[in-house]
Amino acid sequence: MAISAQQQAVEEELVQRVLSSYGNCEDPRLKQIMQSLTVHLHDFIRDVRLTEKEWDYAIDFLTKVGHITDDKRQEFVLLSDTLGASMQTIAVNNEAYENATEATVFGPFFVEDAPLVQNGEDIAFGAPGQPAWIEGTVKDTDGNPIPHARIEVWECDEDGLYDVQYGDERNAGRAHLYSDENGEYRFWGLTPVPYPIPHDGPVGQMLQAVGRSPVRCAHLHFMVTAPEKRPLVTHIFAKGDPQLGIGDSVFGVKDSLIKEFSEQPAGSTTPDGRDLGDKTWSRARFDIVVAPDNA
Amino acid sequence: MAISAQQQAVEEELVQRVLSSYGNCEDPRLKQIMQSLTVHLHDFIRDVRLTEKEWDYAIDFLTKVGHITDDKRQEFVLLSDTLGASMQTIAVNNEAYENATEATVFGPFFVEDAPLVQNGEDIAFGAPGQPAWIEGTVKDTDGNPIPHARIEVWECDEDGLYDVQYGDERNAGRAHLYSDENGEYRFWGLTPVPYPIPHDGPVGQMLQAVGRSPVRCAHLHFMVTAPEKRPLVTHIFAKGDPQLGIGDSVFGVKDSLIKEFSEQPAGSTTPDGRDLGDKTWSRARFDIVVAPDNA
Repeated sequence: MAISAQQQAVEEELVQRVLSSYGNCEDPRLKQIMQSLTVHLHDFIRDVRLTEKEWDYAIDFLTKVGHITDDKRQEFVLLSDTLGASMQTIAVNNEAYENATEATVFGPFFVEDAPLVQNGEDIAFGAPGQPAWIEGTVKDTDGNPIPHARIEVWECDEDGLYDVQYGDERNAGRAHLYSDENGEYRFWGLTPVPYPIPHDGPVGQMLQAVGRSPVRCAHLHFMVTAPEKRPLVTHIFAKGDPQLGIGDSVFGVKDSLIKEFSEQPAGSTTPDGRDLGDKTWSRARFDIVVAPDNA
Repeated sequence: MAISAQQQAVEEELVQRVLSSYGNCEDPRLKQIMQSLTVHLHDFIRDVRLTEKEWDYAIDFLTKVGHITDDKRQEFVLLSDTLGASMQTIAVNNEAYENATEATVFGPFFVEDAPLVQNGEDIAFGAPGQPAWIEGTVKDTDGNPIPHARIEVWECDEDGLYDVQYGDERNAGRAHLYSDENGEYRFWGLTPVPYPIPHDGPVGQMLQAVGRSPVRCAHLHFMVTAPEKRPLVTHIFAKGDPQLGIGDSVFGVKDSLIKEFSEQPAGSTTPDGRDLGDKTWSRARFDIVVAPDNA
């Protein structure tokens, strides 16, 4: 549809009027954000020629997102995640730096004050799933090992649920540990499995309407912090996970983060001599490189 | 800040990945909207280099907007209004058509099934304020009068409050009427006054943070419908209102909609002989032209 020059002028004049309204804003960063938001929001409305009925629908959708959100469920985060906005924010703030490990989405399931485990201990705390031995190093971008780096790890169980989703007070599938004197770490966790994000709300309806899967590729969360280093929030993904071919519902996958969880037969010797009875297990290696905090 | 080509490629690849995720969407209009939203939302994040802390703030802000919204208060509409998004949607859908009257925002205070009044009757129903005699014609763009056009009118009282904001069941300052056989209409209402939009919530905090006034220019709402005509949602604004110089908090003003409410001395003869005692009153004329419904 061709838009007449007169109509374009009307629309453009409105954009300018909204931009001018921020003329008295004393915070230059806030002014920049609001003016950029204005330009892009109006561009969107003008590009799609949003109808008044569609605008009504959008208001109603956002209202539903707001009403399902509470202290246990954050549907706005899910919305941002599924629009790729969370991942783009991560990308903008974690520019590739030399050989530093890439970042990915934080997700809604991190918990402060997860228990401390020693190297080699089990973070599953009884969560069901295939045991996985995960080990690696934490180094700086020059290859120097970083001792005592704090490593937070968290993951869902084999049913695709994080401990906090059970609604009781359990802690399972999460802990923090520290790299040892040599910058090495190791722990028992679970082989990650794919799982759907909560999709019984408006975001799930949106995904269904557009023909998208709500499933996240199998992953294990890491957050690594050390003095004078840029905090690293990332995952490792499981090579061979069929969901990798379909796509991650929150766009978190980066090739460099796909790691092999190599399957080990039941009864085979574990790295620490742990007896797993008749259970199979897996092992994976994740060598972490953190950027300096001025990167 | 210069963004490296490598970093730009990372960000652009993510945008493309999100766009591709809509490949299976069977509704072409929905697909178009989601893909355009993706482009503009990601452009915004990339343009301002949104920080993770600012993203947190945005999630928290939207959560507050959602939580204050209920069946009596619609903070998402206020947000859309104050960002100019509502007015831009109106602009896009109500392209100027010959001499047809311009549209403006609908606002959150319309009520279905407002009482019917006859021409010349009072729509104030006891709402306090200066009486105003409003009259005019409803015509098509060829100048033919339109009899029996439905005219909905609503406005706040002299305290800046709509009836629905009192939380009781009163009806005041609103009604519907029909143009007569000659396409003419007339009624008693109130001289409009400027008033702030509800600003004790997150949208009010945003306006304060950016140094903007929450006040709307004085106005009286009209919605005019007639068979085979494009529905017209508009206001008339009061010439001389000092807020016109400051700006309307929802960007609804159009020059063609500013009308004189000419002040009349107490005791002067009213058009219908009504005795207003020692009250001053005003009179205004608003001749309405509606476009064909295929405009």
